[in-house]
Formats: sequence, C-alpha cells, structure tokens
Amino acid sequence: MLVVMGLPGVGKSSILKGALEGRDVSIVNYGDVAISVAKKRKMAIDRDALISLPVKEHLDLQDAVVAQLKDTPKTILDTHAVLKRRPSGYIPGLTPSLFKKITIDALVFIDAPSDEIAKRRQADPTRIRPTMSAEELDEIRRFSLSTISIYSASTGAPFYVITNREGRSNEAIQSLKDILDSLSWK
Amino acid sequence: MLVVMGLPGVGKSSILKGALEGRDVSIVNYGDVAISVAKKRKMAIDRDALISLPVKEHLDLQDAVVAQLKDTPKTILDTHAVLKRRPSGYIPGLTPSLFKKITIDALVFIDAPSDEIAKRRQADPTRIRPTMSAEELDEIRRFSLSTISIYSASTGAPFYVITNREGRSNEAIQSLKDILDSLSWK
Amino acid sequence: MLVVMGLPGVGKSSILKGALEGRDVSIVNYGDVAISVAKKRKMAIDRDALISLPVKEHLDLQDAVVAQLKDTPKTILDTHAVLKRRPSGYIPGLTPSLFKKITIDALVFIDAPSDEIAKRRQADPTRIRPTMSAEELDEIRRFSLSTISIYSASTGAPFYVITNREGRSNEAIQSLKDILDSLSWK
Repeated sequence: MLVVMGLPGVGKSSILKGALEGRDVSIVNYGDVAISVAKKRKMAIDRDALISLPVKEHLDLQDAVVAQLKDTPKTILDTHAVLKRRPSGYIPGLTPSLFKKITIDALVFIDAPSDEIAKRRQADPTRIRPTMSAEELDEIRRFSLSTISIYSASTGAPFYVITNREGRSNEAIQSLKDILDSLSWK
Repeated sequence: MLVVMGLPGVGKSSILKGALEGRDVSIVNYGDVAISVAKKRKMAIDRDALISLPVKEHLDLQDAVVAQLKDTPKTILDTHAVLKRRPSGYIPGLTPSLFKKITIDALVFIDAPSDEIAKRRQADPTRIRPTMSAEELDEIRRFSLSTISIYSASTGAPFYVITNREGRSNEAIQSLKDILDSLSWK
Repeated sequence: MLVVMGLPGVGKSSILKGALEGRDVSIVNYGDVAISVAKKRKMAIDRDALISLPVKEHLDLQDAVVAQLKDTPKTILDTHAVLKRRPSGYIPGLTPSLFKKITIDALVFIDAPSDEIAKRRQADPTRIRPTMSAEELDEIRRFSLSTISIYSASTGAPFYVITNREGRSNEAIQSLKDILDSLSWK
C-alpha cells in the first residue's frame, strides 16, 4: 500500500488524479472509512466529532478501521500525517496497528509553501475550510514531516516529499508517477 | 494520565497552578519519583547524576520509576520531553515501558519563544539554572517538539502545544483548562 | 555500540580518526556490511541499487545485516540517519530489528552548516559525490535530526549533536572524545 498524505488545500486530489490516469490503481480514503465505521457504531457522525474522541475510543475506532482495510497491492491510502484538533491539538493520522497489518510500500507527503496553501484554501469554492494563517500551516507542516519520518523509521518504508508549487503541478504529478513506476504499478 | 512537558523557565508551574485551581486533579513529578527511586537503589543522588547514567542503568531505573506510577485517572505527569545532557547530549524524557503501562490521555507541551525563556531563566531568583543562549534553547525546543510527536504517534494520544507568551499567561492557563474540560477532569 | 551518523561531506571520517587515535575501539561500517550481504545474496551490487530496493527486500536485507552485527562493546557503527533516494525520497538508515539485537550506548550526529557541507562535497577530490544545494542539504539534515530523536525515544539511548565547524574540527574531535570518555572507552 502507498500512503499519500497532505494538508487540505495542498492540491492532493488533482495530483492523485493526474498521476493515476490510465493506471489500474485504486484509492481508499482513510477518513471515509473511519466515518462509515463510526456511524455504524453510532460513535461520531462527522469529522470534527471523530477527531475529538477520547483516546481509548479513538484507538478502538482506529483498530476497527484497520480491520476494514485489506493488504491489497496497487492501492493508495489517502490520508493525513496529523490531524488538527481545534484550537491547539494534533492527533496522528495513522495508528501503530495499521503497520502490523498492512505492508507500507512507501509514504508520500504532498507539500507546498504555507502561503500558497493558505491562498488555495480560500480560493476553493467547492469546500468550506477554516481560514488558517501561514504560521499555523507552518506548524502543521512541520509536525506532518516529523510524523512521517516516524512512520518511516518504524516501518522501514521509504518516504517522499513532493512539492506542489503554484503553476507547476505537472512536476508534482510527474514525481508521483515516478514513484508509481518504481513500484511497477501500471 | 495527562503528560505536561516544558523547558525549565517556560512557566510550567504557574500555568499548572492556574489551570488546576478548584479542580480535583493530582500532579506527579516524574523527576521527583526518579530521584527517590535512585536514592533507594543508591544509584544517583541528584538530577545531574541521574541523566548521566549509562544506558542500561538508565533503562533499569526508568522501568523502576514506571513500576511506581499508577494508571490513575485525573492525574498529571509533570516531566520533560527531552533532558539536556551537558554539553551536547539529550535523553528522552519518557520511556517505551511507560506507554505499555499507562494510558496517556493527551500530551501537552508548554512552549514560549526562546528569548523569553532565556530571560525568565535569568530572572527567577528562587532557582539556580544554567545560562542558555536562545540558540541553545531553540535546539532543545525543536527536539522536544519532534520527540512529542513520537510519543503521540506511538501511543495514538493527541498532543497540544500551548504557547505561554510574556504577559499573556492567562491565555495559556485557559488553553490548559480547555484541555482538562475536554477530558471532563473537574 | 555507539552509532555515529552524519551526511557525506560533513567530515565524519576525520573526526572519527582524530577521536579514536590511541584508543582500542573498532569501527563497523553499516553500508559496507550491507553491500557484502547483498552481493552474497546477488541482490544488489552498489549503494544506489541497495537504497532502491522494494520495501520487503529492503527489510529482509536489513535483517540479514543485523544478523551479521555482534553486540560487542567498544564498537562504533558508522552509518547514516536517513539515506537519500533520488530525486525526492528517503529511507531510514537503521531498522527496528537492530534495536532488538544491539544495545545502543549512544547516538551521535556529526553536523555542520549546510553551506559548509556543500563546499566540502565539491572540494573533496578523492570521492565523487552528487552536487547538492544548501536547501537540499537543509532538508536532509532536518530529517536526520528528527529520525535520530526517533531512534533515541525508541531505545532510550542518549543522542548527541556535534557541530563540525570550518577550521574548528579539533572542537568536534574533542566532543567525540568526551563522549567516548563518558563511556569509559579507552
């Protein structure tokens, strides 16, 4: 499994779309699975409630999500390195139980300068996203990067940082294609 | 258990005092327990000796400290993310064995700009603390933050960064109160 | 075992040489062991091939390398915190299986400002090293430092950062000597 992470507003969806075009690779959205599992258990009905769960319920839920995932080849797990808990908290996006069940082929973080992410979050008319300052985004990016190196060191999987610069998304798409090629995912 | 960390001079004690006022929450000081265990074992008599132990003795001692701790609700563990070993070394403040025994409800790092910490360390007449440059404090803060994200990723516990700005400690106290409220610790 | 890490071009070899002069301490080069194991298994013939292995083969190889290492006292493991996979990837230099077999007495990272490393990489006529910008080196150093704090937090071993400044390598050598002295490695 290839884990692709990135902040909301970084342009992850369009890079995934561009890189997967013409390839037989499927995407699993971690958050969607988590919400569906939580609803079945009547635990939480939206993302905000999900990331505010007490730690024991959070870990139970994560285990249930991991139980849903299959260790299938040519699959991308679309998720976050860390999730922001308002106003000042973070929870890790992945859970140690995941690494025991699933083989992580590589970890990819789609990154961009904080001021560009801030602008894109405001400009996207299809989604409502809370305003974040470049300083706040800097902090999330920093924690995301250190968390990804933790996932890498504890699994042995390589990690990649792809920068999606304004007006140069083709380069970011190409970088992801190169990673898929290196895994022979066609 | 709620783990509250912060550099000496950041103002951790007064924030804890302010946030816990009127609440039935107890505090365990990790360093005090470690020194008491070390003295009983005739291993080390002060903090400087404690953080200079060879790694095997260090881990043995940590295990003995963890054995002393109880997995009680409404308890704050007052400790450090990393400890500075003079002149250039660090040891992690917490040990993997802790995470197996104790449920960590959340991790909190009380932070402040390095120049403000440097000033407060000099101004406090009640404690003798070695002078540290803002550059040196920057490095400790950076390692503390990456170490806290490790504790979080390996336990699944959320982590919070509270900034204690000069003259605005009330905001930091309120942030800690919000976290205690979210845990329903009254 | 003392693990000494540092980017190619940081001056690791000469600092090791200076600090070990007159001491009965041996050095094991992790990369050399890995290449020798890989050649025997007909897996990879050079370093570039080694760090491009798929994750399962990579982990199998790492386990085989760890099986070769002996938990001997007074031994330095010369290795990297993270390895750069061209163009945008990293793999961790050490593997979780190492920490189960070998007692890590301490972790040392030899560091230097990125612009000085960039210059030294160009100036060394005895080795061919790819040109790297200071920005690129900044990123590798940052990931190295966060990865070292992971190795430290998961083993409990102290970690040291030694800065090898231009024209002041004697200070860096002295710092490493101090660490060896603290371990009583004579």
